[in-house]
Amino acid sequence: MHLAIDESRRAQGISSPNPPVGAVIIAQDGTVLGRGFTQPPGGPHAEVMALASAGAGARGAIAVVTLEPCDHTGRTGPCTAALRDAGVVAVYYAIDDPNPRAAGGAGTLRDAGLRVVGGVEAAAVAAGPLRPWLFRQRTGRPMVTAKIASGVDGRVAAPDGTSQWITGEPARRRAHRQRARLDAIVVGTGTVWRDDPALTARDEDGGLLPHQPARVVMGFRDLPAGARIADDAAPTRHFRTHEPADVLAGLEDALWVLVEGGPSVIGAFLAAGLVDEIEVYLAPLVLGAGAASVEVPGVESLADANRFSLVSVETLGDDVLIRLAADVG
Amino acid sequence: MHLAIDESRRAQGISSPNPPVGAVIIAQDGTVLGRGFTQPPGGPHAEVMALASAGAGARGAIAVVTLEPCDHTGRTGPCTAALRDAGVVAVYYAIDDPNPRAAGGAGTLRDAGLRVVGGVEAAAVAAGPLRPWLFRQRTGRPMVTAKIASGVDGRVAAPDGTSQWITGEPARRRAHRQRARLDAIVVGTGTVWRDDPALTARDEDGGLLPHQPARVVMGFRDLPAGARIADDAAPTRHFRTHEPADVLAGLEDALWVLVEGGPSVIGAFLAAGLVDEIEVYLAPLVLGAGAASVEVPGVESLADANRFSLVSVETLGDDVLIRLAADVG
Repeated sequence: MHLAIDESRRAQGISSPNPPVGAVIIAQDGTVLGRGFTQPPGGPHAEVMALASAGAGARGAIAVVTLEPCDHTGRTGPCTAALRDAGVVAVYYAIDDPNPRAAGGAGTLRDAGLRVVGGVEAAAVAAGPLRPWLFRQRTGRPMVTAKIASGVDGRVAAPDGTSQWITGEPARRRAHRQRARLDAIVVGTGTVWRDDPALTARDEDGGLLPHQPARVVMGFRDLPAGARIADDAAPTRHFRTHEPADVLAGLEDALWVLVEGGPSVIGAFLAAGLVDEIEVYLAPLVLGAGAASVEVPGVESLADANRFSLVSVETLGDDVLIRLAADVG
Repeated sequence: MHLAIDESRRAQGISSPNPPVGAVIIAQDGTVLGRGFTQPPGGPHAEVMALASAGAGARGAIAVVTLEPCDHTGRTGPCTAALRDAGVVAVYYAIDDPNPRAAGGAGTLRDAGLRVVGGVEAAAVAAGPLRPWLFRQRTGRPMVTAKIASGVDGRVAAPDGTSQWITGEPARRRAHRQRARLDAIVVGTGTVWRDDPALTARDEDGGLLPHQPARVVMGFRDLPAGARIADDAAPTRHFRTHEPADVLAGLEDALWVLVEGGPSVIGAFLAAGLVDEIEVYLAPLVLGAGAASVEVPGVESLADANRFSLVSVETLGDDVLIRLAADVG
């Protein structure tokens, strides 16, 4: 199943709005015969990709899939039929499909005589690449991660506006790899005017990674002429609103959205209760003056603070990454 | 040597201005015969305490000490004589005494026929309880740690001033244990007026721990009548200055000083280049408004930021503690 999770990671971002699923075909003796992950909408699902890579070897083999195989014909045929026709004898999967239109695959496979086991490593899969899709199935909106990068005093920019390269190379590299798995990055018009970010996902040499998230600007101001965010390296959308809910509603196909700033945009998402996790990158420095990372309107007392749970702490070079999650109500 | 370091921890705070040293007497077969740590000024040194606890068993035994045994007669006799007279045959120590008045002990012991080995676990000892004393020997001033406790956005108080209990119980417990090893805690008059802190070192039940650091207030304002900081639970000093260097100069016997705030006091120490390490306690919450943890005067650009090195990151319950150190120039 961990190989299947690894496969599913490669589908993240490109499969949306479909779930990023991973599948592995293994022989009875455990030999890996084929692997696959969900292709962009209209393309083959993970099971079909894995079966294709296994070829004739799939006959008599076992399929391991992160999500219950689909049982309906959309732009592609049902995966249940593909598994059965390939001669697979057993299917192990992690998560039952919560989508009633696609569910029922396990029963269909059992009826066809296959051995079917659900719930395999379900917790690991639910916390992995499938998480944003499961979140959207449950809530009807994308999962929202807010990203902060500041000194340990919470300052993101000096009084003169300088803010580039607060965090170091390993933190930036992680941020770019994450972008390549997102559906959208949200910033305010103020950030575009002040910093002119490209918001593309790039490798260490500056080359564009295969998948680029949509660059989403919110706010009423026009974008400056020649803004890098509006170049043709990735799609760009401008929502003339200050309401986070309007922005999310407009991102119909998005599973996972990153809110990068500035402080008022992150604050608006927090005030609206629309931040599901926060990633805080802290550089080992004290700015001591300048803008704070988050400005939430209407906070008067400590009782108004937005409380989260600590998920993990890691070091990235000389920086620290703290991940927080909203307490699921 | 690690047992000796553990012993020396018990001397921290109480031995000042003398070094907090730990000593262990072990038999040739490794059996621990006695332990000791430096007593308050005028009292016995660690070696004498360890010899006393070993009794007659010290004859033919080995002494392990974190610092080179002293060779001079101050308020107590030289430890070299005590070790020789007790019949100890070998001395292992970590750090050469940098104080010319007390140094020379290793040579004296060798001349008396003992086997003497210096430099044992020197790095571990130099990073342990002896560190502030070694720092003071080298620089002529106490080691200064600045402490921050904030949300992940760097806010320490809400706009209405509420700031109590941002961090959780494990973080508070650690802070109290640390206080019991300090010589002084520095706050500004503003903190005293706003928060009326006691700044005592207490155990989990609220009882006073054996050693209390001096409570040091800096600033020109008088303290409010009945301020808890001025009660008789611990010594209190008030320096009518805004100059960190004046405060440190007035703490002649202090080895380790903690600067607790507020933001301007920490900022003044940073601006003066008088912060040697920073401990940042971060609670998993976003305040989104209110005072930032540090206000440094005169910062205009990112180039003015105070840069440190990351020493360690740990979790304390749901809080994160990040320790930073000034790069030793």
